Amino acid sequence: MTGRVVDAEEIARPFRDEARAQVRACSAAIRLRGILASERRASAVYARYTERGCQDVGIAFELVEPKRLEVEQALIDANEDPSVHGVIVFYPIWGGERDRTIQNELSIEKDVEGLSAHWVSRLYGDVRHADHDPKKKAILPCTPLAIVKTLEALGVYRTGAPQGTQARGRVITIFNRSEVVGRPLAAMLAHDGALVHSFDIEDVLAYEGKDVREETISRAAALSESDVVITGVPSHDFPPIRAAEVKQGAVAINFSTARNIEDEVIERASLFVPRVGPITVAMLLRNTLRLYDNYHRGV
Amino acid sequence: MTGRVVDAEEIARPFRDEARAQVRACSAAIRLRGILASERRASAVYARYTERGCQDVGIAFELVEPKRLEVEQALIDANEDPSVHGVIVFYPIWGGERDRTIQNELSIEKDVEGLSAHWVSRLYGDVRHADHDPKKKAILPCTPLAIVKTLEALGVYRTGAPQGTQARGRVITIFNRSEVVGRPLAAMLAHDGALVHSFDIEDVLAYEGKDVREETISRAAALSESDVVITGVPSHDFPPIRAAEVKQGAVAINFSTARNIEDEVIERASLFVPRVGPITVAMLLRNTLRLYDNYHRGV
Repeated sequence: MTGRVVDAEEIARPFRDEARAQVRACSAAIRLRGILASERRASAVYARYTERGCQDVGIAFELVEPKRLEVEQALIDANEDPSVHGVIVFYPIWGGERDRTIQNELSIEKDVEGLSAHWVSRLYGDVRHADHDPKKKAILPCTPLAIVKTLEALGVYRTGAPQGTQARGRVITIFNRSEVVGRPLAAMLAHDGALVHSFDIEDVLAYEGKDVREETISRAAALSESDVVITGVPSHDFPPIRAAEVKQGAVAINFSTARNIEDEVIERASLFVPRVGPITVAMLLRNTLRLYDNYHRGV
Repeated sequence: MTGRVVDAEEIARPFRDEARAQVRACSAAIRLRGILASERRASAVYARYTERGCQDVGIAFELVEPKRLEVEQALIDANEDPSVHGVIVFYPIWGGERDRTIQNELSIEKDVEGLSAHWVSRLYGDVRHADHDPKKKAILPCTPLAIVKTLEALGVYRTGAPQGTQARGRVITIFNRSEVVGRPLAAMLAHDGALVHSFDIEDVLAYEGKDVREETISRAAALSESDVVITGVPSHDFPPIRAAEVKQGAVAINFSTARNIEDEVIERASLFVPRVGPITVAMLLRNTLRLYDNYHRGV
């Protein structure tokens, strides 16, 4: 008895359908602007997928390609343009700390990736609404959100359970603690009730509720007790996870472009999602619509 | 005829005197909290200098030393404590992008270093007031501000001239483009009218007014035309600047802990400031008092 490889398209589809229905129900044109100033090929690929995703559901997408030194001006222009409802910046631009400065130049009302300080702070504080109005939901970063939605779709989350308990009792191991995916994801899963073992190249941290602590658990021990393993190591030096390492019936999800999990993992895992890209794009569309609803509808 | 080595203490003194007088004129106790979770010795040294600076002018300083994982909670505590008027976090904690996330967890009303997105955005936008009230001045990061104040004290700035023109006609070369010193400093000097050649390990940028462009000028050409050279390269691989490289009568300022400028520079330079640490601490005290005036006085 082996598990099943789950195509990300299968999980993304209902979210795209929902977005398409929302766009149809809306009388105004909804517009997402992409800002591409990255020299990395992966960024241009992501821009193309974003464009296709928008076309598919009826969101107007426009790509601008400023020079790196003109990105701040492009952000000012987008912030000031009332016909633009969401903005996605394709990182890296400079890489490192300077890109984090740029992230904060985008209006929070157009930040479809939830990377600006306002949204990041709400995420780590487990504040789920956008502002004082509890009906306006906060924006969460696309890839972490895509993984949470994947866990819901695959039944790892108890979707009917009260907020903060949907992942209670689940043990989840994440290999990646970047500021854009691994760390926010660990916090989100822990806020939903899971115990998370978060591995990076330096150490292991345990996330539980709002608590974070250092721990000394090995890869083998963490994997053997984990209901879910999530990988995002952008290096071929990371030994891919094999079937023998995971718990019987586990769910395995890879969001790295590198092969971090062997296909044979389904000899023991129940489900293996080898990529999440299409789900990330679906979340980007969802966030665009959420920003439109929160801040731009009827303006 | 040789130039003069200027001790940073000499430039810092009048700012400390002014801070002391302000503290004396104030009926309430002004309190600065330091958060030290860095393992780097330089951070502990900076904390000690901060403590001494506070003692000298009468600001109450208290140091807390949380574990790295407890820094966010320490920031929440400091934000919520009405008896704390300013907070300085001694970086690096984790290093890199994660520290930039932490910077935004501090209330802007207590951010004596001006590192949070609110203050950074105002700096690059050349917005000099804190909010809608033009009487409340914005917070600028301590080391860049210390260098501007040094240029004022040394007569490089025309202090009586209208805002935006005090450094007009001056050519300034900076070796460092970090997000905490070199890049904000380049923008500040350019906003004040200077032409800035900004060198980092990858390239050279020219800052002029609000404009930034790539340029191909060599170190030799930049130095030979510069009225001011400012160094902050934390590496012993950087060949220290020698007298023969600088323009006759130039002002040389080093803010790196490494020796980036040879003492013999005064054979041609008119003034050489080999360190700025005490001026940075004086600016930290000044910023603490400014935050107190802007946000906490009479609360």
